[in-house]
Amino acid sequence: MPKIDRLQQPIRRQTREVRVGRVVIGSSAHVSIQSMLSVPLTDFSQAVAQAERLAEAGCDIIRVAVPDKRTAATLKEFRQAVKLPLVADIHFDYHLALAAVDAGFDKLRINPGNIGDPERVKAVAEAAKNREIPIRIGVNAGSLPADLANSPDTAQAMVTAALREVEHLESVDFRDIVVSMKSHDVLATVRANQIFAEMSDIPIHLGVTEAGLPGAGTIKNAVGIGSLLLDGIGDTIRVSLTGDPALEIVAGRHILRASGHHVRGVELVSCPTCGRSRVDVESIALEVERRIPIIDKHIVVAIMGCEVNGPGEARDADIGFAGTADGFIVFEKGEVCGKISGECPIEAIIKRIEAFIMQ
Amino acid sequence: MPKIDRLQQPIRRQTREVRVGRVVIGSSAHVSIQSMLSVPLTDFSQAVAQAERLAEAGCDIIRVAVPDKRTAATLKEFRQAVKLPLVADIHFDYHLALAAVDAGFDKLRINPGNIGDPERVKAVAEAAKNREIPIRIGVNAGSLPADLANSPDTAQAMVTAALREVEHLESVDFRDIVVSMKSHDVLATVRANQIFAEMSDIPIHLGVTEAGLPGAGTIKNAVGIGSLLLDGIGDTIRVSLTGDPALEIVAGRHILRASGHHVRGVELVSCPTCGRSRVDVESIALEVERRIPIIDKHIVVAIMGCEVNGPGEARDADIGFAGTADGFIVFEKGEVCGKISGECPIEAIIKRIEAFIMQ
Repeated sequence: MPKIDRLQQPIRRQTREVRVGRVVIGSSAHVSIQSMLSVPLTDFSQAVAQAERLAEAGCDIIRVAVPDKRTAATLKEFRQAVKLPLVADIHFDYHLALAAVDAGFDKLRINPGNIGDPERVKAVAEAAKNREIPIRIGVNAGSLPADLANSPDTAQAMVTAALREVEHLESVDFRDIVVSMKSHDVLATVRANQIFAEMSDIPIHLGVTEAGLPGAGTIKNAVGIGSLLLDGIGDTIRVSLTGDPALEIVAGRHILRASGHHVRGVELVSCPTCGRSRVDVESIALEVERRIPIIDKHIVVAIMGCEVNGPGEARDADIGFAGTADGFIVFEKGEVCGKISGECPIEAIIKRIEAFIMQ
Repeated sequence: MPKIDRLQQPIRRQTREVRVGRVVIGSSAHVSIQSMLSVPLTDFSQAVAQAERLAEAGCDIIRVAVPDKRTAATLKEFRQAVKLPLVADIHFDYHLALAAVDAGFDKLRINPGNIGDPERVKAVAEAAKNREIPIRIGVNAGSLPADLANSPDTAQAMVTAALREVEHLESVDFRDIVVSMKSHDVLATVRANQIFAEMSDIPIHLGVTEAGLPGAGTIKNAVGIGSLLLDGIGDTIRVSLTGDPALEIVAGRHILRASGHHVRGVELVSCPTCGRSRVDVESIALEVERRIPIIDKHIVVAIMGCEVNGPGEARDADIGFAGTADGFIVFEKGEVCGKISGECPIEAIIKRIEAFIMQ
C-alpha cells in the first residue's frame, strides 16, 4: 500500500544523518541535488566556470572525478575557488582520497572494496573522521565484485555489495556513510533501493546511471528517482544525463517537485488543450515559463483553455487564467476574481502574475 | 515491499479486459498509448492530419472531444478517415454519446453521473453493449461531485467518485469499463490509483492531467505514470502535455520502456561523462539518436566515455562503444569484439550499429 499520506505527502524514511559542508543529508533535511563536473579539474578555469554554472542552476553539492595525481594536485586551489560543498570521486588509489581530505573536500565517494588493504581503508576512514566528512559508497550494477557480477538478481547483488562496503567502514568504527546503488536499468535501481531501505538507516543517494541523452534519459531518471521519492526513499539525488550538467539540476528540481517536495519557483499547470479550447494555451504557457524569473517562493500558475472546467480543474493554483470567447477570466484558488480582454492578453497575464508574486 | 520481481520485471495487476477496436486493454495485453486531438473535428482536414501524425508516432488509440452537435455530425466521416481505434469524449449530453456509438466509435469516455437521469444512462450503456464497445469513466480531481470536492483527501475522494460511477454502469449490467483518476498533483494521482487498484479488477487508464509544458510536464507524467507502472498498475496510458500531441506519444514510449515494458526501437545507454572521459560522448550519442531509424526490434546501444568501466557498466547493452586514447573499442554484451580508429569514428559507429540491426 502507498507510502503517501492522506494529504498527499510522501512519508519519508527515517535515516541517520551526515553533513557535507553546510548541507545535511538525511531524513530531517531537504532532499539535496547533486551533479558532477564533466570538465576535468586539470582544465582548471573551465572546471571552475562549470561549477559556477551549476551553482547558479540550483545545485547543492558538486562532485569531481579525481583519477590521478595530476588532478589531486589541483584540489586545494579548486576548493578555494568554489563555494559549494565538494565531493571527490576516487576509484582505487587511497593516496588520492587522503589528498582530497587534506585539500578540504567535504565528502569522499570511494568503495573500500576497491582500496583493498584494510590498513589503507582504516587510514582513509580515520582521515575522514578527523575532518568530520562523510563517505559515499557508490555501487554500480556494471562494476559489481566478481562473485556477484553474474547474478540474475542484479538488485539483490547491488544490495549485497553495498552491505559489504558498509561493513568495511563500520568495522573501523566509521558511520558517516551514504549509499548509492545505481544501474542503467530503472527497475533494478528501484528494487535495490527498496530492499536496502528496509534493511538500513543509512541515508541514500539516488540515481539512474548512464541514462542517456535528455529526453529519454530525463524520463528514465524521473521514473526511477521519482518513484523512490514517492515511497519516501532518497535523501540526495543525482540525475545522470549525457550533456551539460546544468540540465541535470533543472531536471532534478522538476523531479523533486513532481514527487511532493517543495522547490521554489513557478510551477505551471496547463491543460493539454482539446477541441473545446478557446485560446492558444501553448504560446501563453511558453511565454510565462520564459518571462517569470526564478523567485524565492513556490507559486502555482494555471493556464487553461476554456472557462467551463478551467477554474475548477486548477482549483489548487495560486493564480490562473482561463480562455473565453473574448479574452480570459482570472481566478485565484478556484474563485473567479477578474477579467482580461483587449489586444495583448499575454502582457496583461504576465503583469497579473508579477503583481501576485510581489504581494 | 517492491512489486518488481527478481528478474526486474514489474508484477502486473490482474484485471478484467476490454476491447477498443483491435486494441485490448487489460492485464494480458501490452500497455497501450493514447493521445487526444487538440484540433477540433469541425476543422476536419486538420484533425485527420493530426490523427495521421499520431499514428506515425506510435499512438495506439486516439481520443476526440465531442462537445456539441456540430462536432457529432462529423463523427461518421472521421471514423472512416482514420484507421486507429477512436474514443469519443463526452461530458453531459447523452445524445452525443449515442451519436458516437452510431458513428462506429470504439469507446466512450463519459461519466454517468454527468448524464444524470438513470434512463439515459441505461440507453447509453445498452447502445455501447450492443456494439461491444467499452466506456471509460474519467474522474478528474478538479471536477469532483459537490459533496467530495472539498475533501482534504483528494485521492480517496477520486476513488469514491470513480466507484460511484462504476456502480451506475454495473447496476444496468454494463461491465466493459475502464477507469481513470487524474490530478495535476502527482501524489494524489498515484495514491488514488494505488487505492483503487486494491479494490477493483477494472483496467486502469493512467495519466497526470494539466501537467504543463514538455520538460517539467514530461517529468510530472514520468514520475506519476512510471511509478504506478513499476507497481504493476496501469493498462493504458495518456501523457498530458501542452503542445503537439505527437510529443505525448514519444514521452509515453520512453515512460513505458523506463518502467520495464518492451517498446521497439533503439534504447541509448550513455554515460554522463566526467573528468575520465576520452571522447565526445554527447555528439556521438546525439548522432546515433538522430540517424538510427525506428526499427522493429528493441536494441540497447551504449556510448561510453572511457574503456576502463565502459564495457562493464554497459554489460547488458547489445552493442557498445567505449572511448580510448586513439579511437573506440567495440563491445557486445560486455565482451570486447573489435576496435574503431581513424578519421571518422561516428560513421564507423553508425555502420556497426546498422550491421548489428540487420543481423
